[in-house]
Amino acid sequence: MDYQQLVEEVYREVNELNLRGKVADYIPELAKVSGDRFGMALITLKGEVYGIGDYQEPFSIQSISKVFTLTMVFHVFRSKLWSRVNVEPSGNPFNSIAQLEYEKGIPRNPFLNAGALVITDALTSKFDEPVRCIREFIDELAGQHCVRINEEVMRSELRHAERNTAMAYFLKAYQNFDNDIQEVIRTYVSQCSIEMSCEELAKAFSYLANDGYSLFAKREILNESQSRRVNALMLTCGFYDESGEFAFRVGLPGKSGVGGGVAAVLPGKFSIAVWSPELNEKGNSVKAIKALELLTDKLKVSLF
Amino acid sequence: MDYQQLVEEVYREVNELNLRGKVADYIPELAKVSGDRFGMALITLKGEVYGIGDYQEPFSIQSISKVFTLTMVFHVFRSKLWSRVNVEPSGNPFNSIAQLEYEKGIPRNPFLNAGALVITDALTSKFDEPVRCIREFIDELAGQHCVRINEEVMRSELRHAERNTAMAYFLKAYQNFDNDIQEVIRTYVSQCSIEMSCEELAKAFSYLANDGYSLFAKREILNESQSRRVNALMLTCGFYDESGEFAFRVGLPGKSGVGGGVAAVLPGKFSIAVWSPELNEKGNSVKAIKALELLTDKLKVSLF
Amino acid sequence: MDYQQLVEEVYREVNELNLRGKVADYIPELAKVSGDRFGMALITLKGEVYGIGDYQEPFSIQSISKVFTLTMVFHVFRSKLWSRVNVEPSGNPFNSIAQLEYEKGIPRNPFLNAGALVITDALTSKFDEPVRCIREFIDELAGQHCVRINEEVMRSELRHAERNTAMAYFLKAYQNFDNDIQEVIRTYVSQCSIEMSCEELAKAFSYLANDGYSLFAKREILNESQSRRVNALMLTCGFYDESGEFAFRVGLPGKSGVGGGVAAVLPGKFSIAVWSPELNEKGNSVKAIKALELLTDKLKVSLF
Amino acid sequence: MDYQQLVEEVYREVNELNLRGKVADYIPELAKVSGDRFGMALITLKGEVYGIGDYQEPFSIQSISKVFTLTMVFHVFRSKLWSRVNVEPSGNPFNSIAQLEYEKGIPRNPFLNAGALVITDALTSKFDEPVRCIREFIDELAGQHCVRINEEVMRSELRHAERNTAMAYFLKAYQNFDNDIQEVIRTYVSQCSIEMSCEELAKAFSYLANDGYSLFAKREILNESQSRRVNALMLTCGFYDESGEFAFRVGLPGKSGVGGGVAAVLPGKFSIAVWSPELNEKGNSVKAIKALELLTDKLKVSLF
Repeated sequence: MDYQQLVEEVYREVNELNLRGKVADYIPELAKVSGDRFGMALITLKGEVYGIGDYQEPFSIQSISKVFTLTMVFHVFRSKLWSRVNVEPSGNPFNSIAQLEYEKGIPRNPFLNAGALVITDALTSKFDEPVRCIREFIDELAGQHCVRINEEVMRSELRHAERNTAMAYFLKAYQNFDNDIQEVIRTYVSQCSIEMSCEELAKAFSYLANDGYSLFAKREILNESQSRRVNALMLTCGFYDESGEFAFRVGLPGKSGVGGGVAAVLPGKFSIAVWSPELNEKGNSVKAIKALELLTDKLKVSLF
Repeated sequence: MDYQQLVEEVYREVNELNLRGKVADYIPELAKVSGDRFGMALITLKGEVYGIGDYQEPFSIQSISKVFTLTMVFHVFRSKLWSRVNVEPSGNPFNSIAQLEYEKGIPRNPFLNAGALVITDALTSKFDEPVRCIREFIDELAGQHCVRINEEVMRSELRHAERNTAMAYFLKAYQNFDNDIQEVIRTYVSQCSIEMSCEELAKAFSYLANDGYSLFAKREILNESQSRRVNALMLTCGFYDESGEFAFRVGLPGKSGVGGGVAAVLPGKFSIAVWSPELNEKGNSVKAIKALELLTDKLKVSLF
Repeated sequence: MDYQQLVEEVYREVNELNLRGKVADYIPELAKVSGDRFGMALITLKGEVYGIGDYQEPFSIQSISKVFTLTMVFHVFRSKLWSRVNVEPSGNPFNSIAQLEYEKGIPRNPFLNAGALVITDALTSKFDEPVRCIREFIDELAGQHCVRINEEVMRSELRHAERNTAMAYFLKAYQNFDNDIQEVIRTYVSQCSIEMSCEELAKAFSYLANDGYSLFAKREILNESQSRRVNALMLTCGFYDESGEFAFRVGLPGKSGVGGGVAAVLPGKFSIAVWSPELNEKGNSVKAIKALELLTDKLKVSLF
Repeated sequence: MDYQQLVEEVYREVNELNLRGKVADYIPELAKVSGDRFGMALITLKGEVYGIGDYQEPFSIQSISKVFTLTMVFHVFRSKLWSRVNVEPSGNPFNSIAQLEYEKGIPRNPFLNAGALVITDALTSKFDEPVRCIREFIDELAGQHCVRINEEVMRSELRHAERNTAMAYFLKAYQNFDNDIQEVIRTYVSQCSIEMSCEELAKAFSYLANDGYSLFAKREILNESQSRRVNALMLTCGFYDESGEFAFRVGLPGKSGVGGGVAAVLPGKFSIAVWSPELNEKGNSVKAIKALELLTDKLKVSLF
């Protein structure tokens, strides 16, 4: 398989389709990014990098960071964590609070905002300097210093954090939140404001294509069973309330962010990251999703 | 891999765990089945059969039939069908009507009762004698005459069909139902009252482990892409509101029924059916799910 | 108080406001009525009639009929009925099925469609010819033969009864429905298709202004306590999910219908009916509600 | 009417019924109050006081304070306020956040916690020292210095304010909250921690029985129309999701609190306050509600 030719073909075909969406605008800093940006990087389990377009351009990873924080806590807390957050698809928007009320403060899964806040709370209990630890962990996964926190994005998100703060107070009302709320929100907002390129992100996701062993960190990040479970979670819950559609059309475990990035893996083969800022109504990048659909069609691969 | 030894080991270990649940009792006929029944059949892509326990005993397949009717319509209707039923996990119980109201008569997925009714309605539009066609189709998939409709179960389900009938009228109110409601309900109840053994069911599911080609029917049932999409749907929606948990713990596409059966596939390797009537709170067989979890652990296989 | 001058003043002022809404169009027969029709009749406890505009023109009373059927069953069943239907405002649209699911088949109140179906079911258990009984009862209340069932409206409603039929099957699934569903639906649709004029309707509502004693029937229809309870129900639940707004702005117990009619009472003083077919978004007549607001402002009366 | 004899009769009969409920225990300070306390005070529009039992014993007024804060802002803000909070019954528990999400940050009515927070926020915008103003206003209404804030209750409520704080952040996310959240929560918690006796409370409610004019303050607190609207709101929304039941059985506008108090009015006749700490499942005092039901039965009065 000539992966370089493949990503180039996909890149060209997606561009020809001229798909449009809407750049996230809930904070001004994200709205500034040009909707035309588009890049893709595929990394094999031998570490070979195949890239095209803006694949070395950093972008705001946003919710993709939830995979990293889950991994950090998965390792440490094991089964105890799963009494605090469930593993079911939500059927609701990522920032909905209604379901959290019906289910008495146990978030449906760790990729909803409420679930990710529980994860970041657990991480805050474990690590003294959680933001530094997150940065170092992702750097290690990618095998290079690459994590940058965009301070402007972070400050802007902090100014618009009312909904997530409400979520955290609500979790606390159900005794599912241990630490100071403002501190956890700051950590959460920091992790969402991380910028990475497609290449760096695909490297950092590589362990999930490799039963938990990272080529770049040169160590086992998760054991085989844990790694597969993170993938299962990404497949059923990784794309907000479009997860079923993504599984149906693409069939790879992955995670999207409102910055327009998507990171995904084909276990045993490769990890891949795609970025293009224009989003569909569900908050997923239109070009990134189309690119992954074309790529799996051409490769005739899928989990299934 | 010695599959016979494997299924025997799993069978013994599950029995030792002495897991208990509750036999479905919404109709008296299902409640009569002994909770101790337990069988399992695994069938490779070469057609080899490995069975243990009550694997040749027929049981009520119930919702597992939804995979067959979906396959029958998938083939015929292609994309048009997907305007009538969505492909997202529901986050709600399988017989909930509330979500159907919020989403204006478009069921979340074809494995919810509402979605399966839409499928059976579509099938009724296509085939003159839908019940006969369903039977013949499943017989063909299994490569043998095996489908029996339990008339007692069927009559009893018909007498308790108010909720599904409400669902059908509700779909009709949203113009998402074309045929006579009583006729479709009769077909639907018939398909749920089919009895098959684990061996027969595993054979009939074999095409989904084989990119759509059935060893037993000796023809392509679905093309590769269609077959993978049915698997994706089973993985995200096949176990009611426990689908995420099943993906997380087992990691195989599958479908359960309240008769206590589960059919699943490992693409490229095998299909498998397990039966034990005692159910957990979500309506899935406690022993069948445990058996599949142990089996995938021992095999160290999973989609992910 | 010169009531004739009052209704004329209100009539003129409402007309000058030139309020517009939308005639109900879920069945073609209702959509045919001219949006300009507007009439009002006020009837004192001495039986004096004050009318203006189209106050002698029959119109489709629709949901206003629910007050009459509730009265018929209130009398007969007493407290037993209240285990089958609650007396709380719903907070949801009148034809919503979701709440019925959450509350396990007990409708929130007898003026929601689901609740009214339970009432009509109870009435069907009691009376051999329910439709005839309803007609005779209302004729008696109004002291004259006046009830006409519009057959065209009725047949059209029957052809669009899927949603109410779904509701009835759903109630039956929860054992809260005793009779043949099609028969009850026919009775329900018949009562909704009754046509009466403002004058006739105001006469028929007179007992609710008079602690249960009807001037026109010349007998006690409900005892004092029952009559007050029907009024309490109308105040809290009589205007769909605009009941609070109506209590807030008008302050009279009343009931509206999608035919554009509103019947209301000021206990101890008068009953009143207003009709104008154009509805607001909540399904209540824009002119009728405005008329009642102006009238209570001018009279400086209200319950409160 | 010999009101003294009446309240004594009601008091005795309720005590004989030996009704039991559960003292509020979400904060330890409320749980300490003896469940046997029971008092009642009725005050006519001439200012005559009829009391029985613990009617001069101060208790925690809790949500009854929402009527006073609404009155303070009603006067000042007029119609503008009604774009920030609706006037419809909720159909949901008083502290539910789900409906607030579905209705995009506009609380259903000012007596839900979310609605009361909007009112206290509006009040904070208007008055420099909101807590002092609330105390002075209620003292004025009662015609005497009587308002005491129980500091222990207040501090305890502050320590358990996560759910209300979540609500406030959620309102802010929808731009329906103007002031510092912690400050408003402190004011809100202070108003809920006010202690008054039945006698003081009945005096303070007197203006609502008197078209807005307070005998004790000797001035018009609200105009006639405003006063009636507060009463309409109390009737439709004053008893959490038991408001319909209270209107049905008692038929007076009133407001309850989880401290076990109920204040109510019969417009044109009297105001009344009843207190007994044991609550039913909906959070309303079992004895207070029974007492008001008996009292209106005996008086043969009701709004309706």
